[in-house]
Amino acid sequence: MKNILAELITIGDEILYGQILDTNTQWMSIALDKIGVRVIRRVTVGDEAEIILKAFEEAEARADIILITGGLGPTSDDLTKPLLAKYFNSGISMHPQALAEVSDLFARMGRELTELNRQQAALPEACTMISNTLGTAPGMWFERGKKVFVSMPGVPYEMKSMMTLEILPKLQQFFTTPIIYHRMIKTAGIGESWLADKIQEWEVQLPLHIKLAYLPTLGQVRLRLTATGTDLAELRQDVAQEVQKLLPLAGKYIYGYDQDTLEGAVGNALKETGKTIAVAESCTGGAVSKLITSTPGSSAYFQGSIIPYHNSLKINVLHVAKETIEEFGAVSEQTVIEMANHVRTLMHADIGVATSGIAGPTGGTPEKPVGTIWIAYADGEQTITKKLAYAKDREININLTCIAVLNLVRQNLEVNMEKKLG
Amino acid sequence: MKNILAELITIGDEILYGQILDTNTQWMSIALDKIGVRVIRRVTVGDEAEIILKAFEEAEARADIILITGGLGPTSDDLTKPLLAKYFNSGISMHPQALAEVSDLFARMGRELTELNRQQAALPEACTMISNTLGTAPGMWFERGKKVFVSMPGVPYEMKSMMTLEILPKLQQFFTTPIIYHRMIKTAGIGESWLADKIQEWEVQLPLHIKLAYLPTLGQVRLRLTATGTDLAELRQDVAQEVQKLLPLAGKYIYGYDQDTLEGAVGNALKETGKTIAVAESCTGGAVSKLITSTPGSSAYFQGSIIPYHNSLKINVLHVAKETIEEFGAVSEQTVIEMANHVRTLMHADIGVATSGIAGPTGGTPEKPVGTIWIAYADGEQTITKKLAYAKDREININLTCIAVLNLVRQNLEVNMEKKLG
Repeated sequence: MKNILAELITIGDEILYGQILDTNTQWMSIALDKIGVRVIRRVTVGDEAEIILKAFEEAEARADIILITGGLGPTSDDLTKPLLAKYFNSGISMHPQALAEVSDLFARMGRELTELNRQQAALPEACTMISNTLGTAPGMWFERGKKVFVSMPGVPYEMKSMMTLEILPKLQQFFTTPIIYHRMIKTAGIGESWLADKIQEWEVQLPLHIKLAYLPTLGQVRLRLTATGTDLAELRQDVAQEVQKLLPLAGKYIYGYDQDTLEGAVGNALKETGKTIAVAESCTGGAVSKLITSTPGSSAYFQGSIIPYHNSLKINVLHVAKETIEEFGAVSEQTVIEMANHVRTLMHADIGVATSGIAGPTGGTPEKPVGTIWIAYADGEQTITKKLAYAKDREININLTCIAVLNLVRQNLEVNMEKKLG
Repeated sequence: MKNILAELITIGDEILYGQILDTNTQWMSIALDKIGVRVIRRVTVGDEAEIILKAFEEAEARADIILITGGLGPTSDDLTKPLLAKYFNSGISMHPQALAEVSDLFARMGRELTELNRQQAALPEACTMISNTLGTAPGMWFERGKKVFVSMPGVPYEMKSMMTLEILPKLQQFFTTPIIYHRMIKTAGIGESWLADKIQEWEVQLPLHIKLAYLPTLGQVRLRLTATGTDLAELRQDVAQEVQKLLPLAGKYIYGYDQDTLEGAVGNALKETGKTIAVAESCTGGAVSKLITSTPGSSAYFQGSIIPYHNSLKINVLHVAKETIEEFGAVSEQTVIEMANHVRTLMHADIGVATSGIAGPTGGTPEKPVGTIWIAYADGEQTITKKLAYAKDREININLTCIAVLNLVRQNLEVNMEKKLG
């Protein structure tokens, strides 16, 4: 089956100048992917007639579907409608249904219809109107041969509503689309190239209709499997089979799939095992706690935290022995061992974790340079410590430490991730 | 003066499929705008050789500067480097400095350099290397005639660091750009339309070469003044004059300028007044502490925090009276008053702040719906409380509460911001 290809054109100086973050194209990409349409290009251009017309032409040569957002406002710098009329050799005239809908919208808001807004109901005769239930600019659907152009407002909620209610169903009707199935495998605790080494054999034996991509983020690597075919159930099964083969090679680094987060995986593992956690964090200054509590419902397993930033509080509030800090320093294995165990007891938690280190950019010494961080995990039966050695950036050091702490908890909860395979 | 034009090319299937939100191009647009370079187009393409080469060619025909991100990883689906070598008819060979830098990076992490990562130090001979202090893929700078191509990793913090340290200065050297001077005025504690009302008269009298933009972010409003001309010293003076006129109208909402952050402003005010702070945060779960400690050097004024997420810890660790919680509830004015005062005493701080509320999405009641949050400030002389009423989103509620707490501290430190005018 031939792939159906789409190109997304965004029109507007405000996007090019960086005054607005474009979140529309990501949303559209995901929505199109789900109906088996492959986005092959995104283009953003400014409010200039010739450049926009050229972009239409280039897109028509490459793609089957051209989705255009922006440039539909009522003012003179909004060019999309007249340019589409020109591109499709079409006159523009008042569209009775569009006029009725915009009049109705203004009536509901208790406002008078201005002439500028009335003119938004005039549409190219060559197009089919797409209703805009949330704003004043209707969408426009054009067909030429086997290609479709659709123009929508750039306002995110208006675009999303039009796509969902009318455009996606119309596209599925117009084209016969292949099925594309994605599965994201999420890992922590291993770098991209080490992971690639470990799973090399598995990667080369993947069937031709399943493709692998490495998507690294800070401290984590995601593996994306993309299967293309005609039967969703079959694709799901094929991918699940490949994931099964992957588990013996990399299972201990895999914390979840698709929308799962590491903090969510830790939360689920705590819930499943019925355990609670408390945190004593020094150099991370609240970042570990913030991550844990970013998950709704975390009050079921998160007891609380102590952030003894000043050393005297490590002693007075967290009861780390004064001698420990004097002999080994606040950034030491001995100190985090006491911190993790004491916060666990003090907060009546099953598990205590601790961080102490030099986040930077200052405070380093030759023996303990910036980026030297100790972490500890204690559960009453065992205490596990780990020394981390990162680079100079404060924010990165804090974020990497959070991931290391959460991953340490996850690994020790020994939840068998295999049973989570959907 | 001729405008210098830039085109941004993003390479990667993960962007096209919508699995990653592209925030890089917005950041780059803003950074280029600040040095007087106009972005005329953004293009995103997938990992396909012919399409990428064609995109290089088209961009070179349109723009003076072509900035490319993505496709620089160590694995076989990363095509940018070989394609740039081909595009510039160049061989690829090991770059001694790049190899030294990546070896050094691995040595610092205490890890062995893998062959895949070693190969990342092989570069097209036609390029100048751009150092990557935060990752394994160096950037590449190519010149042909009066045009410049630059390739960077897609990892946001690596790209931003390269742009700031090397690429933007090199571009300013290579091209002659008009002088554009920006000054960002940062406010908290007032909404966009209220602020607009207060400064209306000032806005209409601004000279023609100075433009004002409102840039609202969550819980804050930034005012950007942009002056265009030929003499930087003159532009600075003109803008400083306008800022002086603004202070009587909106000074009490202004916490800083340009790169200043609210947490940094609070930190500076604490340092200037020689005071220390401690935090008792419940519903914010570490977010206030994380913000305070995100500023390097915060150990000078941040004593520490207690996060008594479980109610028993509010009583046992923070010594809130059991009767207070029983009578008024954990989310109450009375509880945050005790939390702020007790954490202040317990942690030997001059100032104590506290948060307790229902962040959501669950836990609301008719009397205390989701988004009901109490905050308190105590400094030994006075205790100030504030009830916040936000909407249903957990993350937004937490972030808005952090801003409200920090702004409460700032206002009470009564630092005269005028003297900070640069």
